[in-house]
Amino acid sequence: MNHINFFEYNPNDTSGVFFSISNILFSKQTKYQRIDIFDTPEFGRVFALDGLTMTREMDEFIYHEMIAHVPMFIHENPKKVLVIGGGDGGTVREVLKHSSVEEVIMCEIDAEVIEAAKKYLPLTSCELDNPKVKLVSEDGSKFIKKYKNYFDLIIIDSTDPTEGEGGLLFTEDFYKSCFEALTDDGILSAETEDPFIHKDWMRDAYKRLSNIFVKARLYMGYLPMYPPGVWTWVFASKGKDPIMDFEPEKVKNFDKPLKYYNEEIHVSCFSLPNFIKDMIK
Amino acid sequence: MNHINFFEYNPNDTSGVFFSISNILFSKQTKYQRIDIFDTPEFGRVFALDGLTMTREMDEFIYHEMIAHVPMFIHENPKKVLVIGGGDGGTVREVLKHSSVEEVIMCEIDAEVIEAAKKYLPLTSCELDNPKVKLVSEDGSKFIKKYKNYFDLIIIDSTDPTEGEGGLLFTEDFYKSCFEALTDDGILSAETEDPFIHKDWMRDAYKRLSNIFVKARLYMGYLPMYPPGVWTWVFASKGKDPIMDFEPEKVKNFDKPLKYYNEEIHVSCFSLPNFIKDMIK
Repeated sequence: MNHINFFEYNPNDTSGVFFSISNILFSKQTKYQRIDIFDTPEFGRVFALDGLTMTREMDEFIYHEMIAHVPMFIHENPKKVLVIGGGDGGTVREVLKHSSVEEVIMCEIDAEVIEAAKKYLPLTSCELDNPKVKLVSEDGSKFIKKYKNYFDLIIIDSTDPTEGEGGLLFTEDFYKSCFEALTDDGILSAETEDPFIHKDWMRDAYKRLSNIFVKARLYMGYLPMYPPGVWTWVFASKGKDPIMDFEPEKVKNFDKPLKYYNEEIHVSCFSLPNFIKDMIK
Repeated sequence: MNHINFFEYNPNDTSGVFFSISNILFSKQTKYQRIDIFDTPEFGRVFALDGLTMTREMDEFIYHEMIAHVPMFIHENPKKVLVIGGGDGGTVREVLKHSSVEEVIMCEIDAEVIEAAKKYLPLTSCELDNPKVKLVSEDGSKFIKKYKNYFDLIIIDSTDPTEGEGGLLFTEDFYKSCFEALTDDGILSAETEDPFIHKDWMRDAYKRLSNIFVKARLYMGYLPMYPPGVWTWVFASKGKDPIMDFEPEKVKNFDKPLKYYNEEIHVSCFSLPNFIKDMIK
């Protein structure tokens, strides 16, 4: 088999992953980043930004289910949801599995990501044309300041903080604006990188969210598509507890298919290994 | 920086990981396999067999703590322990953190692995000279047949089943011999690969152990050193349940340092994502 290999370097440039590309579908340098979309024999279709895998068909469900359902199942009645970033549409797809949802705003800075996702990533972008969805192409860190006490749920589905504009979505100022844009029983989830390669960003994001929200809890998932294969998110709220306020029956009776998340995972994802507890002390 | 890169291919040969080597310490083709030991700028010292990472200083503790402490904390009084494979010594190191242990037999087929580990991997092999430890260089699948009703705990710390002799440690016949070598309240743990790249082996190992033991439960860990960053083991017993018979206080009061395993991880590691539940149905 004749392969073109895709090499993805970790930030320190001494390690990374490689995999074969079978077909390149789209490549473009936009105002913000380089977009690549290609097929692979092993992982299905891959979507990359600036040379880093963002989603792949094989396992994007893990990331998107974990960032969406952990907070969604804690909120009693989430109607208004804001997704910041997440241009591929996978998070919106999961949010819309909840019938309570009336309005989802997706604020993705790069309109060309949305356009490419709609054309080349039908499995993740499938709900972006749903009438409940409003697509906005603005800087999320500015857009959020337009809202006060409005959203039931905010999901921060950003790129790596080291990648230009993405860094703005990891600041304390931005998290504060999110707090203010949430209703009194509002909940936030945020991707917070991994505890190995990006451990400083993970810790910083967790600490900043802890400073602003009443509750903030780090949670984890098995996620092969992002080296090193483990990922973290933070659940943050104005009072709701992700374990004490969890009703397993709601998950057991959920009528939509879920491939990763279930009522056991909801609880166990908050169990942290000792070395991670030490990191975020 | 001038790098030599180490490329580790996944079995399908279309993907893998790469990382820099700063210093090669030892390379040898033995009767069974190729041993390489080298230093890396990112992961500390790495030990590889046939081009696949077996341990690295950065995160070997995760693998070794999970294969050892999950069963050790369920057995009421483990005195006699057999480790099959595990030539680097990391599993023996963890087993000996339990003061009840009187005898550990480590049956590693390749004496040259033990020798190299003692010389070049002091952090994992540090307990191999402990007087409680007996080192045996034999085929584990034959060695096990010498014992009946003897061991309190058997830990199968094998290489990938696809790698020659390692495959013998994944057969139903071998698992049956382990069952017979265990006492009535005996417990076994086995490494059972990952649910992505080696999912067939994982499922087969789990099913075979389920056929022979009264209880068999798959458990999981975050483990960057083995692509795809998630690993599984099976807990198997003649009756003891890894959750119902667990006493969290024993872990809380444990007087030895643990970097990954704790009383929450002990329970949460048995929570399986939906797609893995489906795989092992």
